[in-house]
Amino acid sequence: MKYGRVLLEDVEGYVPGEQPQTSDVIKLNTNENPYPPSPRVIEALQSVSVNALRRYPDPVSLNFRAACARRYGLPNADWVIAGNGMDEVLAMAVRTFVDPDDAILTTYPTYTLYETLAQLHGAHIVEVDLDENFQLPEAFFETPARLVFLTRPNAPTGVAVPKGAVERLCESFDGIVFLDEAYVDFADAHCMDLVQQYDNLIVGRSFSKSYSLAGMRLGIGVAQPAIIDEFLKTKDSYNMNAVAQRVGKAAIEDAATLEANTARIRATRGRVTNALTELGFEVPESQANFLFAQWKGSPSAKTLFESLRDRGIFVRYFNARRLDHALRISIGTDAEMDALLTALGEMIAPVRA
Amino acid sequence: MKYGRVLLEDVEGYVPGEQPQTSDVIKLNTNENPYPPSPRVIEALQSVSVNALRRYPDPVSLNFRAACARRYGLPNADWVIAGNGMDEVLAMAVRTFVDPDDAILTTYPTYTLYETLAQLHGAHIVEVDLDENFQLPEAFFETPARLVFLTRPNAPTGVAVPKGAVERLCESFDGIVFLDEAYVDFADAHCMDLVQQYDNLIVGRSFSKSYSLAGMRLGIGVAQPAIIDEFLKTKDSYNMNAVAQRVGKAAIEDAATLEANTARIRATRGRVTNALTELGFEVPESQANFLFAQWKGSPSAKTLFESLRDRGIFVRYFNARRLDHALRISIGTDAEMDALLTALGEMIAPVRA
Repeated sequence: MKYGRVLLEDVEGYVPGEQPQTSDVIKLNTNENPYPPSPRVIEALQSVSVNALRRYPDPVSLNFRAACARRYGLPNADWVIAGNGMDEVLAMAVRTFVDPDDAILTTYPTYTLYETLAQLHGAHIVEVDLDENFQLPEAFFETPARLVFLTRPNAPTGVAVPKGAVERLCESFDGIVFLDEAYVDFADAHCMDLVQQYDNLIVGRSFSKSYSLAGMRLGIGVAQPAIIDEFLKTKDSYNMNAVAQRVGKAAIEDAATLEANTARIRATRGRVTNALTELGFEVPESQANFLFAQWKGSPSAKTLFESLRDRGIFVRYFNARRLDHALRISIGTDAEMDALLTALGEMIAPVRA
Repeated sequence: MKYGRVLLEDVEGYVPGEQPQTSDVIKLNTNENPYPPSPRVIEALQSVSVNALRRYPDPVSLNFRAACARRYGLPNADWVIAGNGMDEVLAMAVRTFVDPDDAILTTYPTYTLYETLAQLHGAHIVEVDLDENFQLPEAFFETPARLVFLTRPNAPTGVAVPKGAVERLCESFDGIVFLDEAYVDFADAHCMDLVQQYDNLIVGRSFSKSYSLAGMRLGIGVAQPAIIDEFLKTKDSYNMNAVAQRVGKAAIEDAATLEANTARIRATRGRVTNALTELGFEVPESQANFLFAQWKGSPSAKTLFESLRDRGIFVRYFNARRLDHALRISIGTDAEMDALLTALGEMIAPVRA
C-alpha cells in the first residue's frame, strides 16, 4: 500500500476464533460462557435513556471503575482503568509502557494477541518456552524486558502457575508485569490482592468469560494509581460507550450470578476432564473455562477437529508447535458437552476397538 | 512514573468538554444533538438478545459497515472501517499511516485531539494558521507531511473550506488526507464522493452529532479498500461491541430521522446567528451544529462564559490564541437557544446602554 508503514507490511493482524453465523451449532471454540449474564445486565440495557445515547458518556467511566474498586476491596476508582474489552487494556499497556524497539516478554504458548500487539507497536516479543508441565522455567525470570505479559490461568493450556511465581516475578522483574487474569474467576486463587503490594503489577480482568459479556467488550486493568494515571493519558478520549459502562457496573455488582455460573462451569469441567481422560485424552488440570485435550492417537487431533466441525461442533485447533496435537474445548452446558463426548467417542472407538 | 515512557512525561491527554452531572442545565458546550435518535435505534437497543451479549461480536462489524456502504453508494463494506467513535478512527489513522518522528499536518485552529494523538505516537504536529476568514492559506498546500487532518466544517469555527480546496489537497499532498466530516451532515455539501477518485483520501464520519448518538461511540472511516485493509491490520481485535454495531446499522438506515433533525438544527442555527449578530457578536457562517460567536465588547467573552455558567447555561470557551474572544455555542432546541439569547441580552444590554 503506497502510503502504508513499512512496519505493517508483514503484519496480518490478530485472527479471532471462527464465529459461525448459524445458530444451530455447538460453539465450544471461543471460551464464551454458555449461561446468560446477570438479570441486572438486561435491566441496565433496557433502561438506557435517550439522554444517555444523545450525550457524551463519562470519558473516564467513573461509576463503573468505582464499582470495580468496591468489588475488589480497593480504596477507590483511581486503582482501575476501564477498557473496551481487556484487549484494549492490553493494547494500551503496550502503548503506555513500551517504546518501539523495546522488548516484551511472554511465554510460549500463550494468548497470541500479545505478539500482534508488539508487532503493531514496533516492539520485539521475546517468548520463553514453558516447561513440559506448562510451568515457568528459570529462564523466564532471567530475561530482561520492558513489560511482561503473563496469563494465569494460561491459554490455551488452562494451567495456572503458582501464585508464588507471580510474586517472585513482581519482585525480580525490572518493568511492568501485566498479569492477564481473563480466566481467573474459574480458578482456585487469584492475585488481585498483590496490586497493593507491588508498584509494577497490573492485573487484567475480562467480562467476556465469567460474566457472559463477550458481546459488550468490557475489561479492566487494576494497578496502583501512578500506573492508572499513565493509562488515562493514552486511552482514547471516550473509550467506553454509555451502555457498556452501565452494563459493566450492573455485572460486577451481581456477585451471586457470577458465582453460580462459574460454579456450574467448574463442575462440568471436572466431569468432562474425567470423561476425556477415559477416552484417552491427556488433559492438564484446568483452572479456566476450557480444556486443553491432548491427543496422541489416531485419527489425528486435526482430523478430530474437522470431523467435529462437520457435525456442527466447533472447538479450537491451533496449527502450531506444542499445540497441534490437541483440541482446546470451551466448557459449554452439560448437554453440549455430552454431545461432544458422544461425538468424540464415535470417532475414536472404531480406532481403539 | 518509574516504569513510564519518557514520551508521555509531558502529555496531559485530551481534555473533553465539561459534562455537568445534574440534568437541570442547558448544555450547549459539547455539540450534542438536542433531539432524540431514530426510533429504530431504541428498538435495536431493546431487542439485543442474550446470545448477542454472551458471544463475541463480529470482529469486523460487517453488517454495520455494509449498511454504511449502501447508504453512501459505495460498492461494499470493503470501503468502510468502523470505529468506537470517530476518535478511534483518528487514533487508528495515526498508528496505521504515520511512523514515530513523522510529521502530521493540520490547521490552527482545529480539533485539538489531533495534536494529542500525534504526541502519544511520538509524531510531530505541524500547524498552519488559517487565514483571517478561517480559510486555507497557500502554505497549507506547500507543507510536506505523512498525513494531514483537515476538519470540514472546521471546529470551533463552523467554517467549511470549499470542496475544491479538498480536491486540490488530495491531488497535491503526498500522503494520507484524513478529511474529518464530523459535522458535515449540517453542511451544504460533503466530499464522500471523492473517495472513489483519490487513493489517498479517508473521509471520517461521526454518529455523535447528526445521529444523536454521542453516548454510543460510533464513527467510520471511508476510503478505498487498500486503505481499509491497513486499518483492519491495526484495529483492536474486537473494537466494536455488539450493541454499537446494531445501533449504528439502525441509525444509518434511517435517513428520514437524520434529515428531519438536521433540518431543524439548521433552521435554528440561522435564526440564532441573526439574533447573536444583532446583539453585537460577529458570527462566521456556520456549516456545523454550533456557532463561533466572536465578541470584542465588554464584559469579555470569558466573563460571558462564566456568567452563563452561573445561570446553568454551559457553552464552550477556549483559552487560546485566536479563540479567547469567542464562545462556541452548540445549537440546542429553540427553547434552549431562546434562554441563551435572553441571558446574553441581559449581560450585554447594561454595558451597551
